[in-house]
Amino acid sequence: MLSSDIGAKVQELKARLTEINDLNMAQAVLVWDRLTYMPPGGITIRARQLSTLARLSHERLTHPALGKLLDWLAPYADSLPYEADDAALIRVARRDYERAVNVPATFVAQLADHQATAHQAWAKARAANDFAVVRPFLEKTVELSRRYAEFFPGYEHIADPLIDRSDYGMRTADIRTLFAQLRARLVPLMQAIIAQPVVDDACLHQHFPEAEQLAFGLAVCRQLGFDFEHGRQDKSLHPFMTAFAPDDVRMTTRVKENDLCEALFGTIHETGHALYEQAIHPDLAGTLLGQGTSAGVHESQSRLWENVIGRSRPFWTFFYPRLQEQFPRQLGHVTLDTFYQAINKVQPSLIRGTADEVTYNLHVIIRFDLELALLEGEVAVRDLPEAWCSRYQTDLGLDVTDDHDGLLQDDHWYDDLVGGAFQGYTLGNILSIQFYDAALKARPEIPADCANGRFETLRAWLAENVYQYGRKYTAIELVEQATGGPISIEPYSRYLQTKYGQLYNL
Amino acid sequence: MLSSDIGAKVQELKARLTEINDLNMAQAVLVWDRLTYMPPGGITIRARQLSTLARLSHERLTHPALGKLLDWLAPYADSLPYEADDAALIRVARRDYERAVNVPATFVAQLADHQATAHQAWAKARAANDFAVVRPFLEKTVELSRRYAEFFPGYEHIADPLIDRSDYGMRTADIRTLFAQLRARLVPLMQAIIAQPVVDDACLHQHFPEAEQLAFGLAVCRQLGFDFEHGRQDKSLHPFMTAFAPDDVRMTTRVKENDLCEALFGTIHETGHALYEQAIHPDLAGTLLGQGTSAGVHESQSRLWENVIGRSRPFWTFFYPRLQEQFPRQLGHVTLDTFYQAINKVQPSLIRGTADEVTYNLHVIIRFDLELALLEGEVAVRDLPEAWCSRYQTDLGLDVTDDHDGLLQDDHWYDDLVGGAFQGYTLGNILSIQFYDAALKARPEIPADCANGRFETLRAWLAENVYQYGRKYTAIELVEQATGGPISIEPYSRYLQTKYGQLYNL
Repeated sequence: MLSSDIGAKVQELKARLTEINDLNMAQAVLVWDRLTYMPPGGITIRARQLSTLARLSHERLTHPALGKLLDWLAPYADSLPYEADDAALIRVARRDYERAVNVPATFVAQLADHQATAHQAWAKARAANDFAVVRPFLEKTVELSRRYAEFFPGYEHIADPLIDRSDYGMRTADIRTLFAQLRARLVPLMQAIIAQPVVDDACLHQHFPEAEQLAFGLAVCRQLGFDFEHGRQDKSLHPFMTAFAPDDVRMTTRVKENDLCEALFGTIHETGHALYEQAIHPDLAGTLLGQGTSAGVHESQSRLWENVIGRSRPFWTFFYPRLQEQFPRQLGHVTLDTFYQAINKVQPSLIRGTADEVTYNLHVIIRFDLELALLEGEVAVRDLPEAWCSRYQTDLGLDVTDDHDGLLQDDHWYDDLVGGAFQGYTLGNILSIQFYDAALKARPEIPADCANGRFETLRAWLAENVYQYGRKYTAIELVEQATGGPISIEPYSRYLQTKYGQLYNL
Repeated sequence: MLSSDIGAKVQELKARLTEINDLNMAQAVLVWDRLTYMPPGGITIRARQLSTLARLSHERLTHPALGKLLDWLAPYADSLPYEADDAALIRVARRDYERAVNVPATFVAQLADHQATAHQAWAKARAANDFAVVRPFLEKTVELSRRYAEFFPGYEHIADPLIDRSDYGMRTADIRTLFAQLRARLVPLMQAIIAQPVVDDACLHQHFPEAEQLAFGLAVCRQLGFDFEHGRQDKSLHPFMTAFAPDDVRMTTRVKENDLCEALFGTIHETGHALYEQAIHPDLAGTLLGQGTSAGVHESQSRLWENVIGRSRPFWTFFYPRLQEQFPRQLGHVTLDTFYQAINKVQPSLIRGTADEVTYNLHVIIRFDLELALLEGEVAVRDLPEAWCSRYQTDLGLDVTDDHDGLLQDDHWYDDLVGGAFQGYTLGNILSIQFYDAALKARPEIPADCANGRFETLRAWLAENVYQYGRKYTAIELVEQATGGPISIEPYSRYLQTKYGQLYNL
């Protein structure tokens, strides 16, 4: 094997992967447009365009020549240090290739088309507050999800191949164990808090004009380090972040004028995702490695910035005077203490996105369990509303009042396959504290710096230990490497006990 | 040749062309985003994405299997009536195929990348009012343009292959003749008008807040028949229209707060383009036929709606009271007569986009001549500023004061090849009246209907006789068919003589 041969083969691999990446990123632009600016009547042709791009990308990824090239390059990859860029590229390309070859291109094309039309049906159903509008689409989604899993015979649980798409290396059984452990801590904590006097959060539910909320949100993004030269914020029905490259990172928000939290914490959440993508090492940009490594690690960053930082005292020590300046009439007379308690109010609610830190994971666990039940065939889509209501009653003690605030609140099941859509949020919460604790150990001045508006201390640690690597390391490797141990609920549980123990005098 | 064989081959052709169309439309979405919302730092990776899509599309269009398929289907196409959809699809596909096979895929990829970066350099140069910033890019563009022409040996004039891209069937010599005839009418008309007292158009140069201008513009679009369910308007540095399908048509505008005309007539202009695209027959949508047939015919519609309608008395009989309602302080005391004269004021100026109907074509002819000179090698890019100034002095009697209002005012040479970028505007002006006269002959009530806000009478005639056909007929066929004769400057010249003879008492 001559080294000039290797160079040529690596170049060929990179050229093939670049083409795949560009097709995928073109899809991402078309999806971003679909969710932000596309006129409603554009959906049918957009679905077809997305379907074509998905198929072309898949055909390239599953091309036998790519398989042969990866085989040829395997000894070279083995000869390199694990952390070498080329080794990682070959490793991740093989993983993507092996997953893709199980799935027919026709399925991929059909799924892309279905995602686009199902999502628009969801938007209609949500506006009409009527699950029935989108039910046939969800039935199709469940069918496609089951078919997808069947492309991977030999799975332990039918959800495993689906979870593997977003959280590579995690299995249903592992997640069930983690979630059961976590739940055993959350329920008593929630019960103890509910027994305490209710916190008054009326200060958050005054009238806050949209333009001013957006302006303040942008100022926060900027201070946290979001780079507007290489990214932007728009509005959409359901907030999301998408990256076409570290150089072009888009996030969206939505605003409620009678609720300060919706846009504010949503914006910080998406900023967390965006900071991750923007800090991926330039050498990995525009390659298969140039994206966040998993849903769980991605959510660890959105949830870290949203909650661990965004709902912390140091954060508001810096930002609260600025928020008061933006809303003097509404908040001029509200103390920082009152505000801090209000934004950390724990109260079981119907909505995941705006749920407090303690009950949030109960929402996720309901969804995760229902996804498994749908895939296992234990619950049919027609029985989903009942199953949903029943779980909200059991787990959170609440009556679900309508579809809009029930199983139409999130767009995930209407925008991708079922199974693997939600576990990342709770994995992210768990990991957020593991990463934060490691950062704090290395840089104990982080809280003091945050209180002075210097968020770059934390951001730099995260960039160095997490962000820069993109998909070079798996979530499991990254956690081990950055925190010195495996994923564990203990730090997160301790964090919640301490923070909410203090807030509620437990 | 069994008919089931034919059916299968036609299906195969359609599948191949659909893929090409979808790749092209994905490119169009990425370009739209680049020009509207993309953060500036996203340009490098976007240029690469566009380059990849352009190459993949080109590889498909030039695939030998497509050539064979077209050969196989040629007898079938010949057996069909000329106007049959399948006949047109095979005819136009062959034309596109034959043009594409002359051009290497590497060139197409390089051009797509260059267009994106050159356009951003233009935006920087324009902001800095410094042609030098973009000069190397334009030099490269001229080089690429000449190389493109050389892919078509045997041309009569080096610009012919370039003009053929936007105005199929037209040759440099034909256009030179038409433009010389037109110029011979325009110059004396302009001279006669300049000798008259200057019209006072101060009413158009008050302060008109952007939000109100945009709101009025949207109301006008809607009244003209633009369908917002299947399209939208955004802002960009240089206004444009782009269609991803008749179901998704985008247009942009830009606003000057001290000039009512910039956004208003720009919006009507783009609406003209958009009405064309939105009315293409659904059977042609999403195929190679589902777009306007040529630059000239497209501009005939933008210019018809902008000028023949948008600067006419009937139009303002309907809209002026509404405009006064939108701007009572600025226009409440201005009579319709004064306003009508102001929006039709003839005065040589430096800017093509906002030039009056009489001098507008002189701007176009300058650009057309300079394109030819650049291609012929008669003028080098480094001498272009001087050549530009010299022509503005000779043709319009004006000193060009800076690059911003000189050769940086339009983005065309920085967004595509040189040669073929401008002639469509004047061809469009000429055709606009040929189409309008034919419409008027069939539906003499059009002016009265316009005065009552009923623009659908004209729109329906245009849809039936022009819009619905997309690329099914060439410009030359369409003009013959819709107007009963070939392209001719006479009707346009008569229109200008009559309208401006009345306005200026000539």
